[in-house]
Amino acid sequence: MAGEKIYEGKAKILYTTDDPNILLTHFKDDATAFNALKKGTIEHKGAMNCAIASHLFEYLATQNIPTHFIQQTAPDRMQVVAVKILPLEVVVRNIVAGSLCKRTGIAIGTVLKQPLVEFYYKNDDLGDPLFTEDHIALMALASPEQVAQLRQMALTINQHLQDFFLNCQLILVDFKLEFGIDAHGNLLLSDEISPDTCRLWDQTNLDPQARIMDKDRFRQDLGNVAAAYQEVMARIQAVISQKTP
Amino acid sequence: MAGEKIYEGKAKILYTTDDPNILLTHFKDDATAFNALKKGTIEHKGAMNCAIASHLFEYLATQNIPTHFIQQTAPDRMQVVAVKILPLEVVVRNIVAGSLCKRTGIAIGTVLKQPLVEFYYKNDDLGDPLFTEDHIALMALASPEQVAQLRQMALTINQHLQDFFLNCQLILVDFKLEFGIDAHGNLLLSDEISPDTCRLWDQTNLDPQARIMDKDRFRQDLGNVAAAYQEVMARIQAVISQKTP
Ligand SMILES: Nc1ncnc2c1ncn2[C@@H]1O[C@H](COP(=O)(O)OP(=O)(O)OP(=O)(O)O)[C@@H](O)[C@H]1O
Ligand SMILES: Nc1ncnc2c1ncn2[C@@H]1O[C@H](COP(=O)(O)OP(=O)(O)OP(=O)(O)O)[C@@H](O)[C@H]1O
Ligand SMILES: [Mg+2]
Ligand SMILES: [Mg+2]
Repeated sequence: MAGEKIYEGKAKILYTTDDPNILLTHFKDDATAFNALKKGTIEHKGAMNCAIASHLFEYLATQNIPTHFIQQTAPDRMQVVAVKILPLEVVVRNIVAGSLCKRTGIAIGTVLKQPLVEFYYKNDDLGDPLFTEDHIALMALASPEQVAQLRQMALTINQHLQDFFLNCQLILVDFKLEFGIDAHGNLLLSDEISPDTCRLWDQTNLDPQARIMDKDRFRQDLGNVAAAYQEVMARIQAVISQKTP
Repeated sequence: MAGEKIYEGKAKILYTTDDPNILLTHFKDDATAFNALKKGTIEHKGAMNCAIASHLFEYLATQNIPTHFIQQTAPDRMQVVAVKILPLEVVVRNIVAGSLCKRTGIAIGTVLKQPLVEFYYKNDDLGDPLFTEDHIALMALASPEQVAQLRQMALTINQHLQDFFLNCQLILVDFKLEFGIDAHGNLLLSDEISPDTCRLWDQTNLDPQARIMDKDRFRQDLGNVAAAYQEVMARIQAVISQKTP
C-alpha cells in the first residue's frame, strides 16, 4: 500500500506512506493556467516550489500556524499530514490584481486599505466560482464557525507572509490557501505556498511586467518564468540562512 | 425641464416631472437578456409590466414595505419617488435556477431550505458580478448597516411576494430587487417587480418548460412569451379584484 499514487493533480502527485496519517507529495514541473486551458512546464519548478513551500511552512510553524508540513524528503518531495481538504480556496489580497480587477474595475496595483479575504468553491468543473458565506452554508462546505476561523487564520498568515516576503524584497500581492482537517480534527494549513499560488512583485523593480516574480509570467507569456521562481527561492534561502546561522 | 428624458435603460425610460422629487417611468416593450447580447420586443410588455409592478408595489405598501411607487398614470407609465439607486442588485432565491445552477452545480428546481440572498454589483460593463459583503465595503457601495437592512428587507419582501404569488398559483423561484435613497434619506424599494425580474413557475403545470411564466421564455426562445406575461397579469388582477370588492 505504501507508495501508492492516490491523486495526481495539475501540479502535484500524492502518494501513501507506511503511516496512514502521512502522505508524500511530489511536486511536478507541469504548469497550468486558466483552469488548465493553458498548459506547459517550467524547468525545475517542482524542486523550486517544494523548497519554497517547505521554507514557508517551517517559518509559519515558528509563528504558531498549524500546517500539514512534516519534512522535505527529496528536492521535489515533501511529507505532509494526511488531511481531508476543505473544498474552498481561501484567497487573501493586499493589492488589486487578476480577477479582482475584472470583478470590480479597480486598476491593477491599487493598494487595499485592508486585506480582502475571498472564498472560492474548489471545483474545476464549475471553474472555481466565487462563493459568499451563504453559498458555503448552502452547500455545507464548512460551518460558519469554520469560515470565521479560516478567515482569521488567512489574515494572520497574510501578516506573517507579508513580513517574510518584505525581508526578501518581495511584495505579497495576493495568494491562495487550502486548509484541511487531520485525523484529530485539527484545521491545518495544507497544499502549497509558492509562486504558483502567490502573486509576488519585486520591490526593487517598478516596471509592471519586469517586477512580476510568479506564475503570472507563465499566464501572460512574459518569459523568464523559471528564472523568476529561481530568484524567489534564492532570496528566501538567503533570508533563512541569515536567521539560522 | 418637466418631461425631460433623464435616462433610457434597456426596459424603461425615466422622465422628470414638475416636482424634482417625482419621476415618470415609461415601461418599454423592449426585452434584452444575457447583458443585452440578446435583444427583442415582447408585445405589450411595457403595459403589462407596468400594471404588474403597480399592483405588487401597492400590495407591498399595504405590508409596510416602503416603495418608490406613487401611482400609475397610463397603461405603461408610473410615477415614482426620485431616488439615488444603490448600485446593487439584490437577488433572493427560493428554488435553484439560472446562475445558481452554474455556480454550485445544484440541479434546477431544487428547493432551498431557506431563502438565499445574493448581491450583484449593478455595472453592465463588468457584467453585474457577484459581490460579497467585503467587495461591497471595499467599493463603498453601501455601509454594512445598509447591507444588513437590504438583506432583511429583501427577505421580508420575499415572504410577502411568495404569499401573493401563491394566491395566483405561481411559484416565486427567484427575483431581483433594486433599492434607492430618497431626498429624506429613506431606503425605498425601487425599479420594478415583473416577469422581467422574477422567475415565476405555474404551480398547476409540472412540465419544466411549459410552467415557465417569465423572461426565461424569451431567454430560452420557448415561445408564447407575451402570453405568459399576459397570464401573470390576469391572475394578479383576479386576486386583487377578489380582495377589493
Ligand atoms: N495534506 C494533504 N492531504 C491531502 N490532500 C492534500 C494535502 N495537501 C494538499 N492536498 C490536495 O492534493 C492535491 C494536490 O494536487 P494539485 O495541487 O496538483 O491539484 P490541482 O491540480 O491544483 O487540483 P485540485 O487542487 O483542484 O485538486 C490537491 O487536490 C490538494 O487539495
Ligand atoms: N425611483 C427611481 N429613481 C431613480 N432611478 C430609478 C428609480 N427606479 C429605478 N431607477 C433606475 O432607472 C433605470 C430604469 O431603466 P431600466 O430598468 O431600463 O435600466 P436597465 O437597462 O436595466 O439598466 P440599468 O438598470 O443597468 O441602469 C434603472 O437604472 C433603475 O436603476
Ligand atoms: Mg493545486
Ligand atoms: Mg433595469
